[in-house]
Amino acid sequence: MDRLLSIEPLSAAAFAPFGEVIAAGAALQRFAINGGTTERLHALARARADDGDVVISLALAQARQFPFEISMLERHPKGSQAFIPLDQRPYIIVVASAPTHQPHAFLATQGEGINFRAGTWHHPLIALQDSSQFLIVDRDGPGNNCDEIALQPSWWLTGIDAG
Amino acid sequence: MDRLLSIEPLSAAAFAPFGEVIAAGAALQRFAINGGTTERLHALARARADDGDVVISLALAQARQFPFEISMLERHPKGSQAFIPLDQRPYIIVVASAPTHQPHAFLATQGEGINFRAGTWHHPLIALQDSSQFLIVDRDGPGNNCDEIALQPSWWLTGIDAG
Repeated sequence: MDRLLSIEPLSAAAFAPFGEVIAAGAALQRFAINGGTTERLHALARARADDGDVVISLALAQARQFPFEISMLERHPKGSQAFIPLDQRPYIIVVASAPTHQPHAFLATQGEGINFRAGTWHHPLIALQDSSQFLIVDRDGPGNNCDEIALQPSWWLTGIDAG
Repeated sequence: MDRLLSIEPLSAAAFAPFGEVIAAGAALQRFAINGGTTERLHALARARADDGDVVISLALAQARQFPFEISMLERHPKGSQAFIPLDQRPYIIVVASAPTHQPHAFLATQGEGINFRAGTWHHPLIALQDSSQFLIVDRDGPGNNCDEIALQPSWWLTGIDAG
């Protein structure tokens, strides 16, 4: 039996149980710096890296094919993980409060980034266009920091026009 | 007496004394993730935040006017500070090994980001186009984390076409 997952627009409120949205519209603190030439939208997200370092990496992602099967989730218990698109290309975020609960699928557009809170169950990156480029801010350190779980039955993402 | 500062292209090697370049060409570790659909360019930069957190912020910057006077430098002793352009717009980075030494000015293009190592003397953000947008990854925490020093005489950046 197929289980279909609908895709919601991303918003800071809807994503709050899972982490933070990194976008100008989500800013709670804005102030001028550098003699008024720059506005800082402060601390949209907070990184965590237990027993390790916060590192900045790049991801070059290929488009996923639709309909797309959500057959597994993963989580990083020792650290947060942020993805920020560098090319304004849309992508999909799938998160769940528990592997046995129905996941949420969010469509990120217009350069919106997200930060998964440590321990948040999520699907690996779902790019919609080839050569999508993301900045990653996450943990580098010793020991296992990735739990994976299979979803049975799977969920299916449908109805996306990758554009 | 005016002191003129010439502008060099940014490269990982030339910037190494001051920090890291965040760009695909600077990657030392590249590997496939997510079933081969994504390539990760791992740990281009390492964040540091003594006695605080690493936070992710946005900066919305206005263009500086040229010729531009470099009349001060600052440093953040307790943490690194990264700037990653989100719109491919060029900008200028000014760093110095000491306030009494001649600064280096680098032109970053094609989305190149940089990470100032903790304690690196640098000039605040020098955007070349209005509404330039940057991601910032730096420290949030208690106590003073910004030393400033005036440069006398100043240095001048010239010969830039903001385009």
